[in-house]
Amino acid sequence: MDGMNSDFERFLSKHSPFTKEQISEIAESLDIREYKKKTVILRAGDLVTECYLILKGCLRSYVIKDGLEKTIEFYMEEQSVALPGYGKQIPSELFLECVEDTVAVIGTPEIEAKMSNEFPELISASLKMTEDVIDNYQSTIVDYKMDSAEERYIRLTKERPGLIQRVPQYQLASYLGVQPESLSRIRRRISKK
Amino acid sequence: MDGMNSDFERFLSKHSPFTKEQISEIAESLDIREYKKKTVILRAGDLVTECYLILKGCLRSYVIKDGLEKTIEFYMEEQSVALPGYGKQIPSELFLECVEDTVAVIGTPEIEAKMSNEFPELISASLKMTEDVIDNYQSTIVDYKMDSAEERYIRLTKERPGLIQRVPQYQLASYLGVQPESLSRIRRRISKK
Repeated sequence: MDGMNSDFERFLSKHSPFTKEQISEIAESLDIREYKKKTVILRAGDLVTECYLILKGCLRSYVIKDGLEKTIEFYMEEQSVALPGYGKQIPSELFLECVEDTVAVIGTPEIEAKMSNEFPELISASLKMTEDVIDNYQSTIVDYKMDSAEERYIRLTKERPGLIQRVPQYQLASYLGVQPESLSRIRRRISKK
Repeated sequence: MDGMNSDFERFLSKHSPFTKEQISEIAESLDIREYKKKTVILRAGDLVTECYLILKGCLRSYVIKDGLEKTIEFYMEEQSVALPGYGKQIPSELFLECVEDTVAVIGTPEIEAKMSNEFPELISASLKMTEDVIDNYQSTIVDYKMDSAEERYIRLTKERPGLIQRVPQYQLASYLGVQPESLSRIRRRISKK
């Protein structure tokens, strides 16, 4: 637990204007959880009552359609995950699962409200973070509409090289919207260049 | 100008906790602009120095790739538009153009900072709005990865019926990622059901 707290304190000291004392106080009052690899944190049909700030590890969101998993997104260290419907009375379309052993700070609308009350500076920090999240999602949409699977793979190797090493190839393939065999072909073509 | 201001005051009284007086004060201090249909507000390569809150009309973001336009998103009344790279020194990949005559509140990082200083309640209002934007983008990504063009068209008819009436068919086709002829076929198939 101490290790998890210090991960979070490192994160906050990097991304917020808080003093060391405030940071320990915030870290103390939050719920930080450890999940084992392959834990399914949320299932389609569940209400999305929690959001997550990943301190260590990797989460994957996916849907199951016609019996097949389609990977929507991978989330890694320092990324926050608030799936569609978070804090609303709408069941999730998505599953959320741990690709690796994962440590995350848990948020709920109540915790967020309480924290913003006690530490108003957190609101502008969240706003900043939220804007970065939007930027990321928008880029994903642009890339998806504009680029071929091969172009998206090349972009991933540049922008998120760790991802390609850390996630199973069949999940990466479904993230790129191709069959695993097509991903293998793409990798062979690129390695020859 | 009076008409534009009252559009904005209506918007704020619906979405914020401000008094009538505060709302007029905010509306007075903001830059509200009118654009003619087909105005290109931003070109690829430009820095993204402004964001927009649409009071009336419709904007479209698109990329040009291999000489072809691909529509990324349509934005209508009460939606906010902050294209990727907003407020950063990164040139835009996207164009932003008016599909209709459009009235929008203009934001810049400086205006946002000034407003949040003078009206701290605006920060949590923005955060709320930003979270809704994220929800929308996430749903777009999920739909895009999960659904066929026909399924996405049907979803649009339910969730954004106005859009289908208001935008040119070739733009709608490129938004759905299909050729205009395929969109016509989709429409014929659905109308027979």
